[in-house]
Amino acid sequence: MAPSLSIFFLFIITFCVTLTAAAAGHFSLQTFFPRPAYQSLIKHAKTRKPKLPFKTRYFPQTLDHFSFHPKSSKIFYQKYLINTQYWHKGSPIFVYTGNEGDIEWFAANTGFMLDIAPKFRALLLFIEHRFCGESMPFGKDSYQSAKTLGYLNSQQALADLAVLIRSLKQNLSSEASPVVVFGGSYGGLLAAWFRLKYPHIAIGALASSAPILQFDKIIPWSSFYDAVSLDFKDVSQNCYEVIKGSWAELVAISTRKQALAELSKAFRTCKSLHSTASVLEWLWTAFVYTAMVNYPTEANFLKPLPAYPVQQMCKIIDKSPSGETKLSRAFAAASLYYNYSQTENCFEVEYEVDPHGLHGWHWQTCTEMVMPMTCSNESMFPPSGFDYKRFAEQCRMKYGVLPRPHWITTEFGGERIEKVLKRFGSNIIFSNGMQDPWSRGGKRSSPC
Amino acid sequence: MAPSLSIFFLFIITFCVTLTAAAAGHFSLQTFFPRPAYQSLIKHAKTRKPKLPFKTRYFPQTLDHFSFHPKSSKIFYQKYLINTQYWHKGSPIFVYTGNEGDIEWFAANTGFMLDIAPKFRALLLFIEHRFCGESMPFGKDSYQSAKTLGYLNSQQALADLAVLIRSLKQNLSSEASPVVVFGGSYGGLLAAWFRLKYPHIAIGALASSAPILQFDKIIPWSSFYDAVSLDFKDVSQNCYEVIKGSWAELVAISTRKQALAELSKAFRTCKSLHSTASVLEWLWTAFVYTAMVNYPTEANFLKPLPAYPVQQMCKIIDKSPSGETKLSRAFAAASLYYNYSQTENCFEVEYEVDPHGLHGWHWQTCTEMVMPMTCSNESMFPPSGFDYKRFAEQCRMKYGVLPRPHWITTEFGGERIEKVLKRFGSNIIFSNGMQDPWSRGGKRSSPC
Repeated sequence: MAPSLSIFFLFIITFCVTLTAAAAGHFSLQTFFPRPAYQSLIKHAKTRKPKLPFKTRYFPQTLDHFSFHPKSSKIFYQKYLINTQYWHKGSPIFVYTGNEGDIEWFAANTGFMLDIAPKFRALLLFIEHRFCGESMPFGKDSYQSAKTLGYLNSQQALADLAVLIRSLKQNLSSEASPVVVFGGSYGGLLAAWFRLKYPHIAIGALASSAPILQFDKIIPWSSFYDAVSLDFKDVSQNCYEVIKGSWAELVAISTRKQALAELSKAFRTCKSLHSTASVLEWLWTAFVYTAMVNYPTEANFLKPLPAYPVQQMCKIIDKSPSGETKLSRAFAAASLYYNYSQTENCFEVEYEVDPHGLHGWHWQTCTEMVMPMTCSNESMFPPSGFDYKRFAEQCRMKYGVLPRPHWITTEFGGERIEKVLKRFGSNIIFSNGMQDPWSRGGKRSSPC
Repeated sequence: MAPSLSIFFLFIITFCVTLTAAAAGHFSLQTFFPRPAYQSLIKHAKTRKPKLPFKTRYFPQTLDHFSFHPKSSKIFYQKYLINTQYWHKGSPIFVYTGNEGDIEWFAANTGFMLDIAPKFRALLLFIEHRFCGESMPFGKDSYQSAKTLGYLNSQQALADLAVLIRSLKQNLSSEASPVVVFGGSYGGLLAAWFRLKYPHIAIGALASSAPILQFDKIIPWSSFYDAVSLDFKDVSQNCYEVIKGSWAELVAISTRKQALAELSKAFRTCKSLHSTASVLEWLWTAFVYTAMVNYPTEANFLKPLPAYPVQQMCKIIDKSPSGETKLSRAFAAASLYYNYSQTENCFEVEYEVDPHGLHGWHWQTCTEMVMPMTCSNESMFPPSGFDYKRFAEQCRMKYGVLPRPHWITTEFGGERIEKVLKRFGSNIIFSNGMQDPWSRGGKRSSPC
């Protein structure tokens, strides 16, 4: 189990981006919400297509499961990957509940399912989330406006899974095959919710790094960034203090006339900066994402990184010459995240790359996936609150819709989840890495 | 419990109408689908407004919970009835999950909840189903077309309940109050499904006469009409045979030149008939609905009826003079259903009255609520199959949409329900009256 487990942790993923940005909107520099922050993801992933042991299929999927307008009966083609090499009729079907990116990305990083497939003689399915990868209901116009994006949400995605799995089982004449769903991060939420909402289809769920309690007021809003900060503080008090102190230096530079030129040089940007806020985001992303993928082995999920990258970052900070500013030390540490592979001569600080097709997540945070986050005085980030009104107004301006901040807890629950799951529910494993900041919103015991 | 139980059985309700009609479409006369058959309901109910111990409230409800179009954020006002006279803060909240009619109708016929409220110090809520009664999302245009009707379905209705209950509990500062949902017939389906889908909101459900297995191929399609027939056969073999033989006589008359005049006279219609099919439907409705409300006491749910009305109908048939035709005996028996109160001088066989606001159900049968039914040779009705293609085409012609015949079982399950409920689920009581033909599609044991 051990090797698989470490691979499975890789599912801790990237959906703090917007939230980080939203919280940072209160920082004194300026808001950079709703600018996507995908430049932090691995650029070279685009060119590196891993050879996967799956066949690609497309399923004619209903656009809108929950209304019956003439338009909503429209069909789109949902992509899925299938591996039947271990399967015997009647054996289990393991389904990865694809999250907010290209399905190949998740398939390439889910060794666990492949590892256990022979033992269970399992069929493997990786089902792509609607509006991701090739599963675009309106082709290249899918992201045009709220009119098309309206169909992108978790409930429609869960219904997609139900319809596809049921149809596939029928086609395979293997209706008695037990189905187990697997997912990480948002995919972990989907896996847990799928077992809760469709217990007649999935017999169990392994929900990894699923922040099922990150909504509404279930956990303290500062939990996430406190956890990131604690990861660094636990390694080195000095490291934590240097990062915490670096923001004020950045603010001070930002007030200077030559701020952009100065920061462009200091941060070795490939192109001249247009905004000092980009630097904050660039640093912020490096620290947050590194905490999320602080694996004990060298790995390459978001970026190529060494084992225990938080320790490595802190080593860079702690060992830097005493004359260096806090900001330049923070830059050096962040460079580990962006350039561990030593392939970058300069940094595309403002250049947006989205190699994993993650751009739909921003819409979801502006509608259903409202995860309020703040930075407390204890965190290593600039203190900030969560201004819902401002957030909602930004969503309205961008998409013409308002978020529904209480919807997820209404639809899926979360409050008093222990009691609910004890009385109703079974076969859901919630797995969390305690250094992953998302674990604070995860369920850290499995009573059922 | 006994007196309440008999009242609770009253929830066996009217949603075979379309299905009866659909099945009858194969009878040799002609199809009368999709003509609604609401003339069978109590005309005078409109004028008799019972005084109910509830206050009326209206809740600003979201039109579309499952998409985020600018349009779908529209609000409509959902009606609910509330009784707080027995309630103490923290005590339970009993919710009737309103089905396909005016909410007062269900409130007036649910003595059970009022009976037990004092004992539990319970708050009582009767929540009207969207597109029923006064809860019209588009006012008088709500039924205009599939564009508006698209938002009428069970999943949206369940989400309405979740949002309303949650908001109300918050307003009452009584978030820890356990919620139990109650419902009969389609309302019973909603109650059971609500507990299954929203276990974090409802702690239990009493689902009365809920035909949770009446979908897809879970039970034999002939079950419903076989059960109706058995109710009559169990009382009198002769009665069953007379009714069974009456249809051929009706067909024979229908081929005659003066058929409409002849039948108008024989059936004492208030206005001349336009179609011989109306007579079939009129008779059919009387027998089916009487089987559905074959209570052991005099009652008045669909119509005023004596105790054991099936026995009374058969008494009329068995005691009629030997020279009478089978059709005229069937007419005499059916008259009991339409005129037990002796207030009718003639019958509005083709006059459509919908005193309970039930007209939305037809849309639901044409979209999600596809319950295939057939009449076997053993039934007392003309043998008929279920021609899905024809049914779908009729729906397409009327509404411009096609039914989704496998959707309910995909969304809510039903197949192998014993296993699913045993492994996952609790606190759902399924209650059924065995003479109620809907019981064949009900769950007749409660393992969880």
